[in-house]
Amino acid sequence: MERRIAVAHGDEPADLLLRGGRLVNVVSGEIETVELAVADGEVAAIGSGYDAHEIIELSGALFAPAFIDAHIHLESSMATPPQFARAIVPRGTGTVIIDPHEIANVMGLAGVRYILAATEKLPLGVFVMAPSCVPATHLETAGADFGPDEISALLAEPRVLGLAEMMNFPGVIHRAPDVLRLLELAEGKPRDGHAPGLAGRDLAAYAAAGIGSDHECMSTEEAMAKLSLGMHIMVREGSSAKNMSALLGAVTERNSSRFLLCTDDKTPSDLVEGGHVDQLLRRAIAGGIDPVVAVQMATVNTANYFGLADRGALIPGRRADIVVFDDFESLKVSRVFNAGHLVAQGGSLISEPEVSVPDPVGSQRIENLPDAPFRIADSGAAKVRVIVASPDQLWTDAALEAPLRKDGELVSDTARDMLKLAVVERHRGTGNVGLGFIRGFGLKRGALATTVGHDSHNLLILGADDRAMAVALAAIRNLGGGKIVVGDDGVIASLPLPVAGLMSPAPIEETAAGMRSLADAARSLGCELPEPFMTLSFMALPVIPKLKLSDRGLVDVDRFEFVDLEVAD
Amino acid sequence: MERRIAVAHGDEPADLLLRGGRLVNVVSGEIETVELAVADGEVAAIGSGYDAHEIIELSGALFAPAFIDAHIHLESSMATPPQFARAIVPRGTGTVIIDPHEIANVMGLAGVRYILAATEKLPLGVFVMAPSCVPATHLETAGADFGPDEISALLAEPRVLGLAEMMNFPGVIHRAPDVLRLLELAEGKPRDGHAPGLAGRDLAAYAAAGIGSDHECMSTEEAMAKLSLGMHIMVREGSSAKNMSALLGAVTERNSSRFLLCTDDKTPSDLVEGGHVDQLLRRAIAGGIDPVVAVQMATVNTANYFGLADRGALIPGRRADIVVFDDFESLKVSRVFNAGHLVAQGGSLISEPEVSVPDPVGSQRIENLPDAPFRIADSGAAKVRVIVASPDQLWTDAALEAPLRKDGELVSDTARDMLKLAVVERHRGTGNVGLGFIRGFGLKRGALATTVGHDSHNLLILGADDRAMAVALAAIRNLGGGKIVVGDDGVIASLPLPVAGLMSPAPIEETAAGMRSLADAARSLGCELPEPFMTLSFMALPVIPKLKLSDRGLVDVDRFEFVDLEVAD
Repeated sequence: MERRIAVAHGDEPADLLLRGGRLVNVVSGEIETVELAVADGEVAAIGSGYDAHEIIELSGALFAPAFIDAHIHLESSMATPPQFARAIVPRGTGTVIIDPHEIANVMGLAGVRYILAATEKLPLGVFVMAPSCVPATHLETAGADFGPDEISALLAEPRVLGLAEMMNFPGVIHRAPDVLRLLELAEGKPRDGHAPGLAGRDLAAYAAAGIGSDHECMSTEEAMAKLSLGMHIMVREGSSAKNMSALLGAVTERNSSRFLLCTDDKTPSDLVEGGHVDQLLRRAIAGGIDPVVAVQMATVNTANYFGLADRGALIPGRRADIVVFDDFESLKVSRVFNAGHLVAQGGSLISEPEVSVPDPVGSQRIENLPDAPFRIADSGAAKVRVIVASPDQLWTDAALEAPLRKDGELVSDTARDMLKLAVVERHRGTGNVGLGFIRGFGLKRGALATTVGHDSHNLLILGADDRAMAVALAAIRNLGGGKIVVGDDGVIASLPLPVAGLMSPAPIEETAAGMRSLADAARSLGCELPEPFMTLSFMALPVIPKLKLSDRGLVDVDRFEFVDLEVAD
Repeated sequence: MERRIAVAHGDEPADLLLRGGRLVNVVSGEIETVELAVADGEVAAIGSGYDAHEIIELSGALFAPAFIDAHIHLESSMATPPQFARAIVPRGTGTVIIDPHEIANVMGLAGVRYILAATEKLPLGVFVMAPSCVPATHLETAGADFGPDEISALLAEPRVLGLAEMMNFPGVIHRAPDVLRLLELAEGKPRDGHAPGLAGRDLAAYAAAGIGSDHECMSTEEAMAKLSLGMHIMVREGSSAKNMSALLGAVTERNSSRFLLCTDDKTPSDLVEGGHVDQLLRRAIAGGIDPVVAVQMATVNTANYFGLADRGALIPGRRADIVVFDDFESLKVSRVFNAGHLVAQGGSLISEPEVSVPDPVGSQRIENLPDAPFRIADSGAAKVRVIVASPDQLWTDAALEAPLRKDGELVSDTARDMLKLAVVERHRGTGNVGLGFIRGFGLKRGALATTVGHDSHNLLILGADDRAMAVALAAIRNLGGGKIVVGDDGVIASLPLPVAGLMSPAPIEETAAGMRSLADAARSLGCELPEPFMTLSFMALPVIPKLKLSDRGLVDVDRFEFVDLEVAD
């Protein structure tokens, strides 16, 4: 503090001086032509005429606190933390609040601790929310089960801020003791919400539990209802779920400080090509939000909600996490500083991010499988339940169809787009294989497989015939996790995701390219979905209606119970 | 939490339901026609159709979180805490942040602990900031000296939030080790500022020390400069210093969340007749501030700044501290609830506040005085320095005048309005008596005396002759502290302030009436000042220029050093 005062008073030179720029001052709400002096990684002063060891001329550029993403599942980038940082830091992101829910479902505490360790030395502030719903349901087999012990252990970590999105809103509303226990453990800390469409008494009960935020609003009315009950509104704009245009109308001069920006999920190609929080800011500003208010939603509001008193505003004593950009329209980021150090320039990191811990392999225990794991014996039932996937949403429909029968088995029917889908348990060696049929992928031959399968991340295999599915299974085993496409003569595209079957340490551009190759390969087999692997990865998620498949069988999500594949009539 | 959820979900009746009112929702920024359900003293839900054990119909009235005063010296009310609560709670105040700087200067830690104990059971939230500048200067003798030990002890108290206004801005700017030590002790806690007129590098240095607020701004420019450096702006509107009209222009939709309302000092009659935070809200709204934004400045903004996460907004889980009022123009408060209990109605408390601890007498050690304490020997110097008081401000001017001489002494000269002023040390029995002359009071005969004398609160006596001053001294001794007016035949008005010589346990209306009687009595002696005792109480404050008198002598405040009374030429 003494040095900071000395620098601010002009008695000592600063370490760094940014000169000639226009500061987006998120606390005064003004754009100010000022110098910013940095000492020991912190803002020492904003003013004029300061001396410094290093002076950088900003030539009229805008500068602001580096952006903060209020909620993201890092694993959706399919990149390990250093690669994730490579993508987002040059875009102006200084801090992310991560819910490592995916790796937690695969690897449990070890997965979360890997995320904490692997983010420690990045030129990026990474904070973690303790995943609250591992596993997401009791209808599937995950790699871990988080109870009070695991949550307590995580909340004791210095960079764990609170409890991540409480997806189990029925448990909250109906006061399930195990759910209330987790909420109590995080008393006084941020407890994020996840309550799509919740309203009325149910929403009131959810808010009464002390849930402080929600990122699932789909309309201004929903946002206002949650806001009125004290929840901060995270305006989500990710690779799949995009709610910004529906929500900006709820922002007023009297409530804007309770709005934050978040991406939730971003694919590698969307990060590489579209951007990160910078992209959200472009859209918010294009959508009519005052640029300074937009930047507040991506900086100081978020810091305030999470109690991050050391960042989020360029005022004396806070971290000199700074983004420099040309204008509010392009929001083209030219420089990024982390604690006063230039870490990115012209769209790239200055130096490759440090890989500070070995990447873990994670669980891949595909064992005890039956001899013909994809075989469905023909019991003679008239019809089978068919999952109907659609290109634009995670919800599915359910159909009843007569199955194609062959040699006493039920098999894929490419003519009617009824492909066999298998969910192979991969964490505990149970040998569980859930089997069903799915429509919407349009594959004429071959198979697709992925170890990314929300939320338990078991192995999903979809195929035109059992043989191709078997090839896919063997290939995924060889790969040690990832995504593959099997054609007539074997694997025609693959993306290894060796870290927990979710993430790759390869350059994120390569991962993005790999995803494109996979989609192209699927297309060559007749698949017409724009993002076949994105759609596939949600087919085992039994919290989103209507019909889903887990390793334990078909789930009627509306009734939240298992149903038989075959229907007598 | 479980009960709150049950009530919110409609599974259990609430304790209390407010129905038919319009909620000023400070987080959504809207005025909402909703019911508010209370359980266990907290808001359980806002919604409709709830059941409750007790239902109160609000018939279209507005209701809001009870108001918060961000900074007040309780002692300025001259009322003990229960009497202070009697005045402000019916006005809608639910919480006050107190700087007990005055009683700290008189009684030290014991004084602050008395304030903490005496406020514990009031129907009012009382939080304390640790007084940072006791004594205010080394040029006077106070009853206490707060160093790191005292500040640490206070910061460990549960209701002590941080460090009170750091008036020693030169000490901050020039990095005095003892000052920095106090700031460091309060690292991570709110550290209030006091920096009238500070600008440029000095202001930058002050802000760099982590000072989080200021309540001394006198212009929008000053407010914006401080705001830009991260300081929250407390818009002060007290009995003497009124800055609101000068500051409202700085409030914008992008920065309003960083503005708070405070009164700083309120006289008993101003509290009784004018009001408290309700009065400030009337003025802010009349001044053009959006009513919801104004209420935010008196509730949620203040709670956020001080980290009071349990209050400041009527949202689930926060205290049901509620004010009900008719409309934004009159802001006439009809009901006040504290933690869901009706504590005031129709302008009065429901029940007399509890006097939970005995009122301490405090220090009154006027000992070792010289035989003729007010005698000034004539040394033959041509002139004397004269303090020139003015009715509207705390600053004084300085004049050089030939003194009136009589029998080898310098005496009061009522013809030229040069009255003798004495500051008698009353805490440590030093026998110190500072002597000087003052112009502006216009007394033709008699004397005024007070034990309220900022900031050390020594005994101030001003008189038309030494005899009247001696009568005043004896009367104050008999009174055990307080204020008196001496006329031709002895005391003609008096107000006992037995608690530390600063406060009275009598009904605050009586204290207010006593102050009016004192002013009337002073007027009968020729004094033309509108508030003679208010003006008098600042004549010993050696931090406000230009010439002041302490128990140790005349102080040239601009040079911050003692000067002789007599000047040779």
